Amino acid sequence: MATGNINVSVENIFPLIKKFLYSDHEIFLRELISNATDATLKLKHLARIGEANVEIGKPIIEIKANKEQKTLHIIDQGIGMTKDEVEKYINEVAFSGAEEFLDKYKDSDAKDSGIIGHFGLGFYSAFMVANKVEIFTKSWKDEPAAHWTCEGTTEFTLESHDRTERGTEIVLHINDEDKEFLEDNRINELLNKYNKFMPVPIKFGTKEKELPLPEDAKEDEKPKKVTVDHIINNPNPAWTKQPTDLNEDEYNSFYRELYPMQFEEPLFHIHLNVDYPFNLTGILYFPKLTQDLSVQKDKIQLYQNQVFVTDNVEGIVPEFLTMLRGVIDSPDIPLNVSRSYLQADGAVKKISNYITKKVADKLKSLFKNNREDFEKKWNDIKVVIEYGMLTDDKFFEKAEKFNLFPSVDQAYYTFEELEAKIKENQTDKDDKLIILYASNKEEQHSYIEAAKDKGYEVMLLDSPIVSHLIQKIEGNKEQKVSFVRVDAEQVDKLIDKGEETTSKLNDDEKEKLKTAFETHVTKEKYTVQLEAMDSKAAPITITEPEFMRRMKEMQKTGGGGMFGMGNMPEMYNLVVNTNHELMSDILQKNEDEQANLINQSLDLALLSKNLLRGEALTKFVKRSYEMIK
Amino acid sequence: MATGNINVSVENIFPLIKKFLYSDHEIFLRELISNATDATLKLKHLARIGEANVEIGKPIIEIKANKEQKTLHIIDQGIGMTKDEVEKYINEVAFSGAEEFLDKYKDSDAKDSGIIGHFGLGFYSAFMVANKVEIFTKSWKDEPAAHWTCEGTTEFTLESHDRTERGTEIVLHINDEDKEFLEDNRINELLNKYNKFMPVPIKFGTKEKELPLPEDAKEDEKPKKVTVDHIINNPNPAWTKQPTDLNEDEYNSFYRELYPMQFEEPLFHIHLNVDYPFNLTGILYFPKLTQDLSVQKDKIQLYQNQVFVTDNVEGIVPEFLTMLRGVIDSPDIPLNVSRSYLQADGAVKKISNYITKKVADKLKSLFKNNREDFEKKWNDIKVVIEYGMLTDDKFFEKAEKFNLFPSVDQAYYTFEELEAKIKENQTDKDDKLIILYASNKEEQHSYIEAAKDKGYEVMLLDSPIVSHLIQKIEGNKEQKVSFVRVDAEQVDKLIDKGEETTSKLNDDEKEKLKTAFETHVTKEKYTVQLEAMDSKAAPITITEPEFMRRMKEMQKTGGGGMFGMGNMPEMYNLVVNTNHELMSDILQKNEDEQANLINQSLDLALLSKNLLRGEALTKFVKRSYEMIK
Repeated sequence: MATGNINVSVENIFPLIKKFLYSDHEIFLRELISNATDATLKLKHLARIGEANVEIGKPIIEIKANKEQKTLHIIDQGIGMTKDEVEKYINEVAFSGAEEFLDKYKDSDAKDSGIIGHFGLGFYSAFMVANKVEIFTKSWKDEPAAHWTCEGTTEFTLESHDRTERGTEIVLHINDEDKEFLEDNRINELLNKYNKFMPVPIKFGTKEKELPLPEDAKEDEKPKKVTVDHIINNPNPAWTKQPTDLNEDEYNSFYRELYPMQFEEPLFHIHLNVDYPFNLTGILYFPKLTQDLSVQKDKIQLYQNQVFVTDNVEGIVPEFLTMLRGVIDSPDIPLNVSRSYLQADGAVKKISNYITKKVADKLKSLFKNNREDFEKKWNDIKVVIEYGMLTDDKFFEKAEKFNLFPSVDQAYYTFEELEAKIKENQTDKDDKLIILYASNKEEQHSYIEAAKDKGYEVMLLDSPIVSHLIQKIEGNKEQKVSFVRVDAEQVDKLIDKGEETTSKLNDDEKEKLKTAFETHVTKEKYTVQLEAMDSKAAPITITEPEFMRRMKEMQKTGGGGMFGMGNMPEMYNLVVNTNHELMSDILQKNEDEQANLINQSLDLALLSKNLLRGEALTKFVKRSYEMIK
Repeated sequence: MATGNINVSVENIFPLIKKFLYSDHEIFLRELISNATDATLKLKHLARIGEANVEIGKPIIEIKANKEQKTLHIIDQGIGMTKDEVEKYINEVAFSGAEEFLDKYKDSDAKDSGIIGHFGLGFYSAFMVANKVEIFTKSWKDEPAAHWTCEGTTEFTLESHDRTERGTEIVLHINDEDKEFLEDNRINELLNKYNKFMPVPIKFGTKEKELPLPEDAKEDEKPKKVTVDHIINNPNPAWTKQPTDLNEDEYNSFYRELYPMQFEEPLFHIHLNVDYPFNLTGILYFPKLTQDLSVQKDKIQLYQNQVFVTDNVEGIVPEFLTMLRGVIDSPDIPLNVSRSYLQADGAVKKISNYITKKVADKLKSLFKNNREDFEKKWNDIKVVIEYGMLTDDKFFEKAEKFNLFPSVDQAYYTFEELEAKIKENQTDKDDKLIILYASNKEEQHSYIEAAKDKGYEVMLLDSPIVSHLIQKIEGNKEQKVSFVRVDAEQVDKLIDKGEETTSKLNDDEKEKLKTAFETHVTKEKYTVQLEAMDSKAAPITITEPEFMRRMKEMQKTGGGGMFGMGNMPEMYNLVVNTNHELMSDILQKNEDEQANLINQSLDLALLSKNLLRGEALTKFVKRSYEMIK
């Protein structure tokens, strides 16, 4: 039996790093700037704890591109490396310098300085775009500078150098096929994507700046211009500050920094800030949502210590909150893992729950502290709240306190308030509370009016997922509450209080009337029902039973309902008001006149329910023109 | 100056492989089965070329799980390894055995045997789910078997073993947190996802099979059952065969193999088969598309040598074809690279163009060979064709020959045929060909009827992107063709032939009539126009000019049009037919009667254009009931 050590063949690891490690070439710049940032923060840290006795000044990182030489330069004024350190950190691939550093200084505040990174690995990503990489580096220690060169093979050269400035300059000799990375536009794009909020100022080129005019300026004097460094990042983004140090304007202006193309102000923000049992900062914004919900998802940006990672927060932020915008910064979220792994990860679960809780708390305080404003915003935030209530039981519990039911006349009720308001007039004979609603004020206008004439309150519930939510609420209330759409029954039966109206017609007349109507409608689609209603109510009403319609809607909006219901044909009840004088008229007419009357009044009933279309509508219009001539 | 070799530290590469190399743990099984497949195909190859003088039989791969021992076994009957080969292929990580094999036998047909894989790397993915891995292996060569063990560190043991069967057994001692991979359901799921079409039979467990009844079976005799191997894969999927060896039923049954939950048959298929300048096989299917297009995208599966890779073919298949279904198998598509990299890749570009061309050729031949059938399928395939014409100029050119314009009466024309048919009657005074269309037969019924009464052909163009496409066609025809929707003008002006009808009303009467109408409509929304039309035409027509409406539609369906047009308010023309007798009536009435007549006839015109809604509709219905009483 032999034992031995597994040997990693370097020749084969190099292509591996190039090919597999990062799916995207452009990542190299982020990695190198992360290293430069680490080097700068490390030096600051050593100076602060008195270990390095050096003048720090205001260190920056500079990016330069030289198109003629085809080189890209990343220059920092940080800790630098001695020759020995280059040996150790660069030549031993996958040796994580930052880890060792953290280990050594773990009792000091190094962790809070945001020092992370895996120096060795990130550095080698340079070979994805460069055929030759040079390092010029001078440590803060009193040792000579070093110059390291490697041409993408496993061989390197390392020699002393006469550089005297502290810090490191990485020079990439860019491949021909990657020369896009020498273009100002492309570099700007990358800096803007990955480094916009990194903690050390990053200079790329210069810009002109107008000086303020002197007090004694002449009338036509133009301000002087000077050339200044172009700093591409904001090293102190809002989310790294304390909520108490920020006002509303600053939150809004950070929103515009994040989404420069977004013209509308956010509705409100939620500042996240926790460091136990996990570390997370961030700001979430509720945007004004437009109709097309799908394009508005996945705008939340994920950072780790101010380095942009991704805008895919699936699995980290609960799905119903992916319509929000903003930033989450946490070193505790595992990267490059599958969704199922994320879902099983304990820390991620806690983060997700924390975010849900913070959002619910914020909504509750907005509702309590400024209800009027909350009601004004309701239309823009309701989808998020309703979707959350539907998918997250903990959120449902919290949200019941501030979830609003708006009436068609713009009064807003919580469930509790609504119940108190309508209990007396809208409880049916089985002691069930009936909540009437419409989904469209225009389309259901005549039904809404009929219900309001009875003194009922009609809610306006028009979100696409509302049928799922009311189904859930009914279940939670143990079936002592029913939501009924205003066109589900004729108005007297919407809330069945067990009252009966006597019919003006006798049984024989009713039979005749029913037969007359049935000869004029499609039996498969319309069921004729005779009802003794108020004589002033509509002569004919077309209704669509709640259960069937809701099941069909639930199927359409993604699951739920009952299997196969979505494909059921549309079926309606045709409710004939036997007490309306039109019915006595009809019974007295001869067959032809009867047909005319029935057809015209049927068409009018269909119109009220938006069911008269195509050829039938054209014929109705022609016939009506004839009538008014 | 010193030179030296970069050292890869193994301790740090191991976590790297675990963490970064594969974003998904479950991939380990695919990798190990790929290795087993390679080992089997290699042996077959050596036997075929006479290098290995062994009895091959019908080798299979077996997967076994032992829940008590917490082990998962992958067993093959392939080439096996000697102790030396284990040293070389296993202990030297990232040494690609397959590459060396291919190199050695590059002149033979090894390439065609589908031998790929990077043995070393794939093997180590086992450590993502196992804390200990064992290899038992016996080479086809006359050498003793070997037993290798490693517990996830860089140390291993290697010893001889008394195994006598040729081939390799990998034993994974599964981690506690990965014990899902010992469950039959989970293993079946993985095998079904990644290995369903791999070229060597894969056994997982057993199943019962009924034997056919003997000829002399008694009446109530039940068939005998025997236990047989459960082979989970189809080693010879349809796409690996020649089109000439497959009939329509076999194509359809392969479709069901790919999409077992899909009940509808595909409309037709396209067999892809090319080996120069790139290697690609596959079968694409045109499915019946339903309304919700977004859920139907990304069903095409990408394989490499019969190993499932992904169902994201973005960048490989042109976007307009991502609504198709089926399989693409190509070793020439780079994996794990960014979309921008894919788009720049020459081979991928050629593949994408090849697929487009094959689809266009297939559509053309279907059109030529069975036009009737093609017309029947048009409604299901038009979105793909129209979207392709819009986004791909080469496809546009080809598709012009088979792109169909269906009339509202289900006649189908190519552009050329349509032009010939309508040239005489539908050319306007500026010699422009006017193609009339409707987007909805129900909603635009009265307008369609009016146009048909004039002898015009009306097309039915109802795809969501059709406004973009007709805009493109008009541009291509150098503005000698205009598409005009039937409700864009009053019927006499739809095709302006320069004919004038004289008005029955004098200028004074016209002025009075105009003023009367203008007092009853909202000026910002409706522009009153008096026109001397046929006295039998509609008294009032509401029209919506083509240009404005089309720009608004284009903005709604994703860009194009003119900036800001999408938010323009809706504006209509209200065309009053001065020659209709209703107008003379109106002029003779007193003010009250005039108002009644105008309001009722305005409502009727709004009804025809689906613009009478909400309160106005309720009032109209009530008023009309009064009239018929």
